[in-house]
Amino acid sequence: MSRLDEIIEKIEPIDEEAMKLAKERQDNLTKPQGSLGILEELSIKMAGIQRAPRPKIENKVIFTMAGDHGVVEEGVSAYPQEVTPQMVYNFLRGGAAINVLARHAGARVVVVDMGVAADIEAEEGLVKKKVAYGTRNMAREPAMTREQAVEAIEAGIEVFEKEFKRGVDIAGVGDMGIGNTTPSAAICAAITRRAVEEVTGRGTGIDDEAWKRKVEVIKRALEVNRPDPSDAIDVLAKVGGYEIAGIAGVALAAAAHRVAVVIDGFIATAGALIAGELAPLAKQYMIASHLSQEVGHRVMLEHLGLKPLLNLNLRLGEGTGAALGICLVEAGVRILNEMATFAEAGVSEKIE
Amino acid sequence: MSRLDEIIEKIEPIDEEAMKLAKERQDNLTKPQGSLGILEELSIKMAGIQRAPRPKIENKVIFTMAGDHGVVEEGVSAYPQEVTPQMVYNFLRGGAAINVLARHAGARVVVVDMGVAADIEAEEGLVKKKVAYGTRNMAREPAMTREQAVEAIEAGIEVFEKEFKRGVDIAGVGDMGIGNTTPSAAICAAITRRAVEEVTGRGTGIDDEAWKRKVEVIKRALEVNRPDPSDAIDVLAKVGGYEIAGIAGVALAAAAHRVAVVIDGFIATAGALIAGELAPLAKQYMIASHLSQEVGHRVMLEHLGLKPLLNLNLRLGEGTGAALGICLVEAGVRILNEMATFAEAGVSEKIE
Repeated sequence: MSRLDEIIEKIEPIDEEAMKLAKERQDNLTKPQGSLGILEELSIKMAGIQRAPRPKIENKVIFTMAGDHGVVEEGVSAYPQEVTPQMVYNFLRGGAAINVLARHAGARVVVVDMGVAADIEAEEGLVKKKVAYGTRNMAREPAMTREQAVEAIEAGIEVFEKEFKRGVDIAGVGDMGIGNTTPSAAICAAITRRAVEEVTGRGTGIDDEAWKRKVEVIKRALEVNRPDPSDAIDVLAKVGGYEIAGIAGVALAAAAHRVAVVIDGFIATAGALIAGELAPLAKQYMIASHLSQEVGHRVMLEHLGLKPLLNLNLRLGEGTGAALGICLVEAGVRILNEMATFAEAGVSEKIE
Repeated sequence: MSRLDEIIEKIEPIDEEAMKLAKERQDNLTKPQGSLGILEELSIKMAGIQRAPRPKIENKVIFTMAGDHGVVEEGVSAYPQEVTPQMVYNFLRGGAAINVLARHAGARVVVVDMGVAADIEAEEGLVKKKVAYGTRNMAREPAMTREQAVEAIEAGIEVFEKEFKRGVDIAGVGDMGIGNTTPSAAICAAITRRAVEEVTGRGTGIDDEAWKRKVEVIKRALEVNRPDPSDAIDVLAKVGGYEIAGIAGVALAAAAHRVAVVIDGFIATAGALIAGELAPLAKQYMIASHLSQEVGHRVMLEHLGLKPLLNLNLRLGEGTGAALGICLVEAGVRILNEMATFAEAGVSEKIE
């Protein structure tokens, strides 16, 4: 049995009994029942995920997975490919948006080279899991082999499990990779079977002409490779990316270890989509942090059955939305753990 | 000149030059321009409010204003009136939702007795500004006199100014008062001239029959008192509440002192509506934290020209949504202050 199969087999449904107990406690706290809406729901979901009526969030970890994409030679991005390693250095030095928002959320950031198309000089903090120097150009051939796709997912599993030993009570997943809205839209179209035009956005900010080219490139990639929608590994290998595979791996490992995984935007959700296809139970451990400005994001979230917590017109990636989402999940869990009950506070209950 | 007139006169437009400089910096940070959406907008607005291209948020304060309502004798609430002082004690002991979420946001909570219908035994931390032991029943007579309305707004101004001496970089406003969605809906209907049915919700959770009664009570209050929609003090006096007046006072004083004020839900927005009518420039200092489940909330926010940051089905009050909103504003400001620029990080810019 492969490492991937082992992890998938280990994933169990979340715990209904712990959720029932958490709901009972929420209903006894000094506020009208249900009046904290989604914060209450998040705390109950966390109870189910951690199998504890009083879940805890101490260790917060955001996994930012980086990879490059051969398809950039088709001119699908507004930025040059060298930005991927440049941004990895920026992450390691603490100057990027994800560093700021992770600090704000009290989370540590784990930066992973899953497949950057350049050597990154050893700096403290970088997790090296490079499967290849970027994918191949999916508009001409499969982005990677099936073996590479599995290797990349398993690398994501390893990254999570190593961090899990240090302590992870909640995980966030994000991405970095110039051109990676293109494979994400291709994965979305392949798995949800929606038209490419409906799920393709403007990434970091391309114009109308470039958008049309991007749509054509994705259509060509799907025609050339004919990914099998019922085989998520096939889809990932043919039109995916290494960082997307790594995110799928983290999502699967988090579920197997009963840890909630907060999904960032469009690219991270493409990884979550792969994970959800491989292990439908993994979806119970996912929390969608925000609705991206990328048009296909809503389609993928609906396919996963997830409702985004925030709608702030974000379209950056890196795990930035996940960091904000973790803040909200923690708010819900703190409400559950720290508020007084009606009895404790001597407050009268509703007139029945 | 009254204290209220002085404060209103002191309010100036926010600073366009500081906003321009903040926008320039945002555009040079290592991310695609605009890719952090509303977080970027919040940081730019904060620059304008603080008249500083690099605004700061160190001292965060949530003002939770409490008051009672004579109209509860008409049976408009699901909870007994004694809950108002009971919850004030809960706030002072740190067991309520606002205490938990303020801790999460790193904010201090200032609890103010604006007009609770009971004596609250002196406990540390309570600010005593009781104008009366609750309002009168607005379904029969004016809730308060015009003099009481002005006194309550000025009390709110004093509360803010005292805290401002200790340091306030961002303020939140929230409420506590059994029955106070009823005067809030009345204020909303009077000022926005919408039908009572369209702006009346279920408060802490009343049934259909009680909702119909609530609508009838609000209609009667408007008929009996005939508040003048062009005179916000008249509206506040006839169908308002002391905590609502106090919130209006805090909002006006915050604007006068160039401090952003993050508005909580339905009741706090009724206070903001009064402030905005008295001093239209004060609206530039307001940030709407969330969209409440109370149906009239959207109507008031539209009237104020504010878009809510969050939509989490909250309907608790106390300032809980404001605490979450402050977290997001701080996230935006930290992005502006802490991220590296393209030049600093050595990251390539967009291909033009």
